[in-house]
Amino acid sequence: MQFYQDGFHPGDPRIADPTDRIIAPPLKLPLPPQVDVMIVGCGPAGLNLAAQLSKFGRISTCIVEQKDDRLLVGQADGIACRTMEMFEAYDFADQIKQEAYWVNETAFWKPDADLPEHIARSGKIQDVEDDLSEMPHVIINQARVHDAFLDVMRHGPGKVVPHYSRKLLHLEVDQQATDYPVTLTFERLDSQHLGVIETVKAKYVVGCDGARSTVRKSIGRELVGDSINQAWGVMDVLATTDFPDIRLKSAIHSANEGNMLIIPREGGYMVRLYIELDKLNNTERLSKQSITADYLIAAANRILQPYTIDIKEIAWWSVYEIGQRLTTAFDDAEDGRPPRVFLAGDACHTHSPKAGQGLNTSVNDTWNLGWKLAHVLTGRATPELLQSYSFERQTVAQQLIDFDREFSKMFSAKPKSANNPDGIDPAAFQQYFVQFGRFTAGTAIHYPASTLVRSGTHQNLASGQTIGMRFHSAKVTRHADAKPVHLGHSMKADGRWHILAFAGKERFMGADCKVKALCQFLQNNPASPLLRFTPKDMNIDAIINLQAVFQEPHRNIEVANIHPLLQPSKDLYGLKDYEKVYSAKSAEGCFYEKRGVNKEEGGIIIVRPDQYVAEILPLDDYQNVANFFEKVLIEAL
Amino acid sequence: MQFYQDGFHPGDPRIADPTDRIIAPPLKLPLPPQVDVMIVGCGPAGLNLAAQLSKFGRISTCIVEQKDDRLLVGQADGIACRTMEMFEAYDFADQIKQEAYWVNETAFWKPDADLPEHIARSGKIQDVEDDLSEMPHVIINQARVHDAFLDVMRHGPGKVVPHYSRKLLHLEVDQQATDYPVTLTFERLDSQHLGVIETVKAKYVVGCDGARSTVRKSIGRELVGDSINQAWGVMDVLATTDFPDIRLKSAIHSANEGNMLIIPREGGYMVRLYIELDKLNNTERLSKQSITADYLIAAANRILQPYTIDIKEIAWWSVYEIGQRLTTAFDDAEDGRPPRVFLAGDACHTHSPKAGQGLNTSVNDTWNLGWKLAHVLTGRATPELLQSYSFERQTVAQQLIDFDREFSKMFSAKPKSANNPDGIDPAAFQQYFVQFGRFTAGTAIHYPASTLVRSGTHQNLASGQTIGMRFHSAKVTRHADAKPVHLGHSMKADGRWHILAFAGKERFMGADCKVKALCQFLQNNPASPLLRFTPKDMNIDAIINLQAVFQEPHRNIEVANIHPLLQPSKDLYGLKDYEKVYSAKSAEGCFYEKRGVNKEEGGIIIVRPDQYVAEILPLDDYQNVANFFEKVLIEAL
Ligand SMILES: Cc1cc2nc3c(=O)[nH]c(=O)nc-3n(C[C@H](O)[C@H](O)[C@H](O)COP(=O)(O)OP(=O)(O)OC[C@H]3O[C@@H](n4cnc5c(N)ncnc54)[C@H](O)[C@@H]3O)c2cc1C
Ligand SMILES: Cc1cc2nc3c(=O)[nH]c(=O)nc-3n(C[C@H](O)[C@H](O)[C@H](O)COP(=O)(O)OP(=O)(O)OC[C@H]3O[C@@H](n4cnc5c(N)ncnc54)[C@H](O)[C@@H]3O)c2cc1C
Repeated sequence: MQFYQDGFHPGDPRIADPTDRIIAPPLKLPLPPQVDVMIVGCGPAGLNLAAQLSKFGRISTCIVEQKDDRLLVGQADGIACRTMEMFEAYDFADQIKQEAYWVNETAFWKPDADLPEHIARSGKIQDVEDDLSEMPHVIINQARVHDAFLDVMRHGPGKVVPHYSRKLLHLEVDQQATDYPVTLTFERLDSQHLGVIETVKAKYVVGCDGARSTVRKSIGRELVGDSINQAWGVMDVLATTDFPDIRLKSAIHSANEGNMLIIPREGGYMVRLYIELDKLNNTERLSKQSITADYLIAAANRILQPYTIDIKEIAWWSVYEIGQRLTTAFDDAEDGRPPRVFLAGDACHTHSPKAGQGLNTSVNDTWNLGWKLAHVLTGRATPELLQSYSFERQTVAQQLIDFDREFSKMFSAKPKSANNPDGIDPAAFQQYFVQFGRFTAGTAIHYPASTLVRSGTHQNLASGQTIGMRFHSAKVTRHADAKPVHLGHSMKADGRWHILAFAGKERFMGADCKVKALCQFLQNNPASPLLRFTPKDMNIDAIINLQAVFQEPHRNIEVANIHPLLQPSKDLYGLKDYEKVYSAKSAEGCFYEKRGVNKEEGGIIIVRPDQYVAEILPLDDYQNVANFFEKVLIEAL
Repeated sequence: MQFYQDGFHPGDPRIADPTDRIIAPPLKLPLPPQVDVMIVGCGPAGLNLAAQLSKFGRISTCIVEQKDDRLLVGQADGIACRTMEMFEAYDFADQIKQEAYWVNETAFWKPDADLPEHIARSGKIQDVEDDLSEMPHVIINQARVHDAFLDVMRHGPGKVVPHYSRKLLHLEVDQQATDYPVTLTFERLDSQHLGVIETVKAKYVVGCDGARSTVRKSIGRELVGDSINQAWGVMDVLATTDFPDIRLKSAIHSANEGNMLIIPREGGYMVRLYIELDKLNNTERLSKQSITADYLIAAANRILQPYTIDIKEIAWWSVYEIGQRLTTAFDDAEDGRPPRVFLAGDACHTHSPKAGQGLNTSVNDTWNLGWKLAHVLTGRATPELLQSYSFERQTVAQQLIDFDREFSKMFSAKPKSANNPDGIDPAAFQQYFVQFGRFTAGTAIHYPASTLVRSGTHQNLASGQTIGMRFHSAKVTRHADAKPVHLGHSMKADGRWHILAFAGKERFMGADCKVKALCQFLQNNPASPLLRFTPKDMNIDAIINLQAVFQEPHRNIEVANIHPLLQPSKDLYGLKDYEKVYSAKSAEGCFYEKRGVNKEEGGIIIVRPDQYVAEILPLDDYQNVANFFEKVLIEAL
């Protein structure tokens, strides 16, 4: 899609008239007196959590924001592959794919060896390695991602709509109270109710209120780390230029004028420029307060020499100051006391925008937390489950900050040259970039062992699906309708667990088929987690979604032979769900080969509701299947 | 996406609460006194035309419908590949792909040889041949396609919204009048204005008012053809069954109980049953008026023996009566007098629903007409262009009816057996089905030679792009941002012509590059169609969109070397459009090899605004490039 050629206008670019892109803000209703979950802040972290919880009609969720409307411009724009995989679970990845810029290649520019005042291209690399994800790395205004979440929230059974113009003043946790232990105090900021104070009682609170988080302060956590902030000039512009790689993500190191990152943007014309202010030529440096857009434009032109850029319109610009900091814990838990208040996103970790991880890490925080909260609030798990949030995400944030420190240093260093022998070799920077491609794509996240991520005794049964990492999707053929589908896309943002049974060498559903035997166990044995943990009034796949993959071509298997547990009768009418059985073969190859599944033995992959691989087991290891869920779920009544 | 498991509800299934799927019908405003185009009928033909015209802010378009709101259930559901290609030009193919059922395979059932009272599967075939289209053949409620068109209409610069509760009574054409020669008389049907008569004057009228078209009658055209209607029982149901191919499109021929077509539907649970009423067992036959849903359910169960189907809910059912008929012309033109009134869709051709061509042919009618009307109304072409509509589409409809007659006969015939030696061999039916796969996919449409479709002297330069047929897309790599894209998707529903220049063996943009020379001609020579036919105040690509494809890997070409006409400066700010140059190479192969483009010579493919190949020429045949457009377009002022 091409758009913004006549100037930038916020909102859905599919609508020709910009005035029709305006969405009326929701009615300014009073806050509810009590809620299950109170989310503070409508950034990506908060909105993702609200979107996840909106999938549960029985959970009362409230989300507040001090600003008076949805975000329209600015802030982050990079969407990593792993984040796109998550968007797919909400069914809006296609929309983002259509609208966004796709980062296919990255260009690197350094001082020209012969004429160091000029920059010259040092190389181009493929941005995302082949088959790392079925999703592209894309760039799009953070505001459009917000819009997608807002749609999911409004359309879910929970129908969650933000309360704008609400500023959290403080919150208190009454550790004695058992029902709604957290009391929050808000001030209304809308002119009709200016200064009105509201209090809300909540079971759980999630502080998604950004780097200056009031929630964080209220629970006494602190961001620790570098005390010095780095300042970046960032501008989204419509411009003409003779710089050849203007439609490629480009990292530019000039000899003496500083560094710049070019991020092409959605619509084919807009582009973002990032300029690290502290690295600008000394004589030109200004105090942050006095920086203007013209100052940034002049800096960009100096860095780009011999090329020039002529800015026609600035859609948004900002000086974005940030340090590398992290809180010691992402919740208010103390020894022996499960958490009531959580922190997510910038509220608990901040870092430079260079690797584009701000939004991505923030949404992945609440992607980790959302299903856990839903489990506890719907009675599927005990509150202890919630402790795993800080445990898992704090490690990830620490890794990110370590990475960011190194990456920023390399990015910010002057290029190596005759005058500057200690500088960084552009080739080394490019190499580092490639090496950490998986990290920046978000696919390297590896949660440590716990009850949710087992030790990996049987990792060899599916060598390409690392326990503790995200389930790595590939195409299969759905049996009942012969449709080529991504196996990973069967795992939606619905809080369900997944048992994927991969058949071994025996004929699928033949007498000695181990998947069939597993189905028998799961259907009949009192130890079956499906029987134990699924409430009687729910579908048999409501808590744990059993699916199977076989090795034969899809036409070789008859629907009638498939075990009924793989075609369960569901809901009001007892309609059969036919979408749980797949052939590993598709036009794109064999799933077993692509993901290292053992063709002789097959195996079970247990996948968490957030799409992370929790455990891999032999097909007949019923005991450990039972054990796994016993440690996580509560027996259903 | 899975949905309807708890019962069918119309509207967008992404919205959990069915009551939130309701869209308020538009304000019941009076009709405008005069318009450029009046479209009668909000079926797929009318809505597609309105969507196309809504892309032009300068054209005033009005669309009326006698019903009081948008369609919510029923009617057609099959979307052929070619129709999906058209949806892509409106940017809503992805949404339909996500929501629809995909027809990947078709199953054939015949009487069991050993036990003829029972049916047995005779075979399964792949539904669409490989690489016929980048789009799948899908099934979705016609109402959801209407919704997508309504969105495009509302969001386009023309902002077209239907006027409901308006019944056309008659129209008259004043052949003397030059400005608004057609006068239409409408009756209001809404209770607030019941019986109020309105008249509207229009430059052009398009009768998309279905099989009983008032427009058709007003201009004295008649549907001619079979006088006997065939009657079909059709029902969209939620059901349980032990019939194994319930999630595959299945054609079922029973020995003595009749025939049935099973069409799985969107959401994973719903299914459509088509039963040909005249072929039911004689003793059970009823008059059409007295047919009930229970009667159809009983028939389905008899046909399916030994299987049964238990209907839990009927989302929609109907007895759909139709004959194979066609009008002699699709407009009111007479010798030497260009048309003012057109017919499209069921208003000018009707046929059985068996091959799923009703909706598809109807939207392709107005897809052919839309850009032509826009050309004339925006002064790009003379009214003579409009004569090509009836010329081109009448032939297609005739072919369809011939095909449908044959196909219906085979479908309806009793299967060959010992008792019935003259019956049809199921293998022959299956064979026929395969043979006409391209026809039913809509990709076989071949417009005859005219000023819009040239004679094909240079067809050999691109043997896979048949002149007169739709441009057959394949993947290429967009040069400026290294994105793998479908070349065909650069052709949007915007009324533009396309010149695709495929480079020959010379280095792209080198001294002897013929694409470069072509660009020089097009940029500088007074005979250049870009210069002659593009109004001075418009972008140079506003009328004819020049694009180029080269054979080298995309990184081998530098942006700076590309001819400026392939990176034109556009619109308000003179921003450069970088999305016109492609490498033929992508991970999926080489475009030249896939589509038979001559690697030595290269060539020019001229593509019409409706994506049909109009002409193929050598790269240096400037004379014929100029000639081509001279015959179609009017010199710009
Ligand atoms: C001005 C700005 C520019 C940025 N630019 C870039 C960039 O160029 N590149 C990049 O990668 N990242 C950038 N970021 C960072 C990126 O946007 C964040 O990493 C990401 O938004 C983090 O998401 P979050 O949901 O954790 O927090 P945020 O997006 O910061 O959201 C927090 C929300 O909480 C609200 N809030 C705060 N306090 C209260 C309160 N007391 N009561 C009610 N509501 C409250 C805030 O108004 C805000 O909407 C920028 C951030 C900001 C604020
Ligand atoms: C009840 C029904 C069931 C069908 N079932 C199937 C099926 O099962 N399978 C299949 O393939 N096809 C089916 N079809 C056919 C398929 O829907 C059509 O081929 C397709 O809709 C044709 O599109 P169209 O736009 O030409 O006409 P239509 O979809 O018929 O639209 C014509 C519109 O014009 C309106 N109209 C008519 N006269 C006037 C007037 N005087 N003033 C104002 N408005 C007027 C009508 O209300 C209607 O909305 C069915 C059609 C109908 C009507």
